[in-house]
Order: sequence, then C-alpha cells, then structure tokens
Amino acid sequence: MQLVSYPNGVVRSTDFQMVLRKLGRLRPGEVLVRNTWMSIDPGLRLRLRAQSPDGYFGAIPLRSTISGVMTVGEVVASRADGFAPGDAVSHGSGWREFAVVEAGRDEIGGLGTLRRVDTSLAPPRAFLGVLGGTGLTAYAGMLRVANPRRGDVVWISAAAGAVGSLAAQLAKIRGHRVIGSAGSDEKVSYLLDVLGLDAAFNYKSGRLEDLLHQAAPEGIDVYFDNVGGHHLEVAIGALRRGGRIAMCGTVAEYDKATSSPGPDNLFLIVAKELTLQGLRGNAHVDVLPEMWRELGGLLRAGRLECPETIVDGLENAPLALARLMRGETTGKTLVRIAPEAGK
Amino acid sequence: MQLVSYPNGVVRSTDFQMVLRKLGRLRPGEVLVRNTWMSIDPGLRLRLRAQSPDGYFGAIPLRSTISGVMTVGEVVASRADGFAPGDAVSHGSGWREFAVVEAGRDEIGGLGTLRRVDTSLAPPRAFLGVLGGTGLTAYAGMLRVANPRRGDVVWISAAAGAVGSLAAQLAKIRGHRVIGSAGSDEKVSYLLDVLGLDAAFNYKSGRLEDLLHQAAPEGIDVYFDNVGGHHLEVAIGALRRGGRIAMCGTVAEYDKATSSPGPDNLFLIVAKELTLQGLRGNAHVDVLPEMWRELGGLLRAGRLECPETIVDGLENAPLALARLMRGETTGKTLVRIAPEAGK
Repeated sequence: MQLVSYPNGVVRSTDFQMVLRKLGRLRPGEVLVRNTWMSIDPGLRLRLRAQSPDGYFGAIPLRSTISGVMTVGEVVASRADGFAPGDAVSHGSGWREFAVVEAGRDEIGGLGTLRRVDTSLAPPRAFLGVLGGTGLTAYAGMLRVANPRRGDVVWISAAAGAVGSLAAQLAKIRGHRVIGSAGSDEKVSYLLDVLGLDAAFNYKSGRLEDLLHQAAPEGIDVYFDNVGGHHLEVAIGALRRGGRIAMCGTVAEYDKATSSPGPDNLFLIVAKELTLQGLRGNAHVDVLPEMWRELGGLLRAGRLECPETIVDGLENAPLALARLMRGETTGKTLVRIAPEAGK
Repeated sequence: MQLVSYPNGVVRSTDFQMVLRKLGRLRPGEVLVRNTWMSIDPGLRLRLRAQSPDGYFGAIPLRSTISGVMTVGEVVASRADGFAPGDAVSHGSGWREFAVVEAGRDEIGGLGTLRRVDTSLAPPRAFLGVLGGTGLTAYAGMLRVANPRRGDVVWISAAAGAVGSLAAQLAKIRGHRVIGSAGSDEKVSYLLDVLGLDAAFNYKSGRLEDLLHQAAPEGIDVYFDNVGGHHLEVAIGALRRGGRIAMCGTVAEYDKATSSPGPDNLFLIVAKELTLQGLRGNAHVDVLPEMWRELGGLLRAGRLECPETIVDGLENAPLALARLMRGETTGKTLVRIAPEAGK
C-alpha cells in the first residue's frame, strides 16, 4: 500500500492507495514472506508528513510502498541462510501482502531485522505486541527507564493501550501502587476489573488535576507518559521530590500540524529534582532475550492480559490507524493481512 | 533586613526596609555571629512572593527578618560545642549584621547548618561561592547530573554567572569541548579569553538557534541550563541522541508573575531519547568534603577562575539582587556586610 497524500489532521483512507506490483526473483540473502499480521502504532502518524521529527524514523515518501512497519508472516521461499519455507518470522516490511526481505537489513533501529519467532512462546502476532516492539517499550520503559523503587506510586496514561496496559501490569507485578488513566468509562472498568489496577479514571470526566489527586492524594513518584500535552504538565505538578517520568510518546500531539506549547511548570523539574527521560523501544533491543524469557513465562502462567483490537484486511489499515489515534482501540491494534497457514 | 512588599517584576529597594532589633541573651546551643559576607542567588527571587514554587524553599514572610540565605561571618560569642569566638563560620541566617544561630538547625536543606570553614583553603567568602552552594551546584550538576562522557560537546548558558563559570571550567578541565553563552560581548570575551572556553556567544546578538549552530555545527551532547525558556527549547533541538540536560534554574522566568509556556518541541525528548534532570545543590551536601578537596586543590594550583561581583553594605543587598536578575553581574554576586577582623 502507498501513501498518496500527507493526512491533514485525522488519517483518511483516501490518503492511501493499494497498488499491484510484480515481485522480482529473489537475490542471494533475500527471503519472500507472506505477511499475515501487521502492527499499527501511533508513532507511524509522525511519519505521515513531509518531514518526521528530528531523530525519529524517517518520513514515509509518497507513492512508494510504505515500509519500516513491523509485520509477521511466513517464509514462502528463501535464499538466506537460517530461513526456510514455513518459518514464522518478524520483519519491518509491512503494508504489503508479500514482502521481499533482505536478511540482516533494517531501517527501524534493529527491531525490524528479519528474525524467526519462537511460536512455542505465543502465536506469531504476539511478536508485534507483547513479545515485540510494544512489549519492549513497556518492559524497558518501566524497568530500565522509569525503574520504580519500593513503595513508589506509579501513574500510567493511555493505560488501556498497547504499551500502557503492559507497563501497568509490569508495575503491578512488581508490587507498586498503580494508577491508570484512559479515555472512556469502559476502558476504566477494564483497568480496574481485568488488569486489577489500584485506581483508574477517565481523563475526560473532570479536571485532570482533580482526578489524579483523588487517585493519588499523596502524589506520585513515577509517571509513564504515553500522551504528552496537559497530562505531562499535571504529572510534573503531582510528582514528589526525586520523581521520574518515562516519556514514551505524546500521542495527543500527533495529529496536529504544529506543536503545542509545553508545560508552563517546568521549574518544578528543578524544585523537585525530577527526571524526564525519553524512551524508544528500539534502543533496548539487547533486552529482547531477557524480555522473551520473562514475559513468555508470565504469558504461559496466565499472568499477563494482552488485549487486542483486530482489524481485517490490509485495505483497512488506514482505518485502524485512524481508530487508534481517536482512542477507540483497546490494547494492541493489529491488522490481519492474511490467515496463518501454520507449519 | 525585612521584606515589606512582594516585588512586582524587578526587585526594588523600596520592597525592603532595615530594622533595628535588640538581640536576646544566647541560649545553650546558640552562637552569636558577626556577619561579614552574604550570598546573592537568583533562586531568592522565587521566594519573594506570597507562595514559592511547590517543593522549593519557602516563601519569605513580609515584615520579619529575611532568613534562609547563606552567609559567612565570625563567631563573637558561643554557647555551642565546637564553636569559639573568632571562628570563621558559614550559616543560613543572612540579611542581618549580627545573627544568633542555633547549631545543628537549618532551614535550607543541609547547606545552611552552622559550620566552621577551612580558611586554609580560601578566604571565608569563598564558602559562599566556589566552596559553598554555588560550587556544590556546579560540581554536583556537572559531575553527577550532567556527567559528560568522553568526547561530549557541552553547552552552558549564563556561563559567566556564578554557577555557570564554575561548571564550564570543570567541563574544560575534564577535556570536553565547552561552549558558553552569556548576555553581553564583554562576558563573551571573558569566557573566551579568561576561562578559555572553546566557543562563546552573546545570546542577544542573533537568533539563538543560529548562534548555537555556529558554535556547535554538529550539535551538543550536554546542556547545563541556568536560564530555561527559549534557551531550553533550543537546547532540546540541538541535542544529539542520548543527550542530557542538567536543569539548574530558569532565571529567565523568575521576575515574571506567571509562568511562560514550555518548549513546543518536547517530542524530541522521546525521538532522541534525551534526559532532563532537575538539579539542586543542597541535595548533594554529601559531596561537600570531596568537593572541598578537589576544588580547594584547583584553587591552590591557580587553575580555577572565580569571578566576583561585590556590592558593599547590607542596605544595598536588594540592589545587588536586582543587578543579578538583570544580568549585569559576572561570577558570584556577594554583599560585603562588614570587614573581616581576622583571627
């Protein structure tokens, strides 16, 4: 699928078009993959513009097949060592039904390198979510960046989202008091009843400062930020001395053509000796084996909820992204490109 | 001296008044100090308002003698163990000619506890600057918080100021490429010719982005922020992946009644995995002995420039603060309350 125009505000299907391309013969080192599932992530929205943010993944060029998006599939033919027909693999060449992938090559910081996935841990699509980039962002973000200390109170925004729901559960499993926020009462029920968080609120139901204060009257120690904007400002206000913020994304801003001003209370970073740290999963690829062990174990033990929103058909991928950006999805948003044949 | 009204914008002498008070008899544990020098710090401006920022030192009450400000002096009489007439001491009871100080008590986070100062290292007033809170902020800020790595390019704003000039020299001594900015051409000459920085610019002489780019075409790795506001935004733009910001103060904001919006480019904290950390010297009091050793050694070796702006007379302290806030001072701003008698 190609991008034909940079979306203005909310992503529309008409910004995209499907094209039919004939694939050439495989060259040495290449593998032909039949894609089955594709990851839909908010960060993609930042690349659907003429220039992506400095330091981020590159902008998606118009009228060429969209690339650099995590996908799983099955090897159909292989001229690369270590890959054979029938292998379940993950790679970074999404937005197409069949992909020719060069082994060892990656355009998205190490995560997109073609690799076989261990289907004894979970079905292949889990390697886009809990065992893929989403899991890595939550795992490294909570354990390496936010790194709550014993007794810390942790607030997670967009806590019913893909990264947020995992980050919240990891903090709970480690014994912290965990507060989640989300954008609907239904999601709040999910956070309380299914994920078992200590407190949760719908940020649309009142003044954010008040809602957070009710959930954490004594303040918070860690904020896991998926939202940015006013949420970040309120967190800076509520953090106690020495508090930490893992900044994972600022999804409130991604649909906007221009950036909004930042929080007006940044002096509190000095006054309370706060730390803000930006977080990108792909900087922590070294932690994948450890994460597969730990999260794979939790999955097998049934201790990890991995909600999903599944959209069928590659042609509906733009719709899936639009729904994600509007806050209508819960957990990991996936596009099912084709059924799995299995081995 | 007392505060009689909260300054509106720039501090004026008429916001203060001198009063004569009779001192009571010393109680056990108390020491009478004849104050000789007082520290003038930008952070005091944040306390000259009805409410100081959350987590910061308390607001200065109206019509009571201003307290919680670092001062040095000579012990006149003592009913506390370990202190004898003639001792040179530092404490937190500034803005007065004579202070009754209770040993062991402090209202400014550990730094203001009555302590004898080692005049073999430097004259007493140095314990307000390079060997006191100023030095501690620069030393802990540069070495513990910013902690530049080999090869890092370091930008320091307000680099001709008390903290900035020390932080810049510490980074130079450790072999980094150091860029300083300041608010006058005279200060820029000082940074280049006396402190020997690698590059320096007057931030008023052009677009800040362009000036920094000229000084650091490849970007920076560490920003030591004494200013906040637009400087912070430009630093976030110029930092390379994994860069760090030690936020020491936001002096551009202190005279304002309301806070300005923050940088609009905070997503770059995520994209480039930046870290911002707030810094207060008094959180690092444990490092004082190490700092006295190291900076004392550098002072004796003549390797540390410690510029000073000296204002005579306690009655002129408000003027000293106003000049500091207007950027008219270089290095440490001190008020000479009385001549030193010496031992």
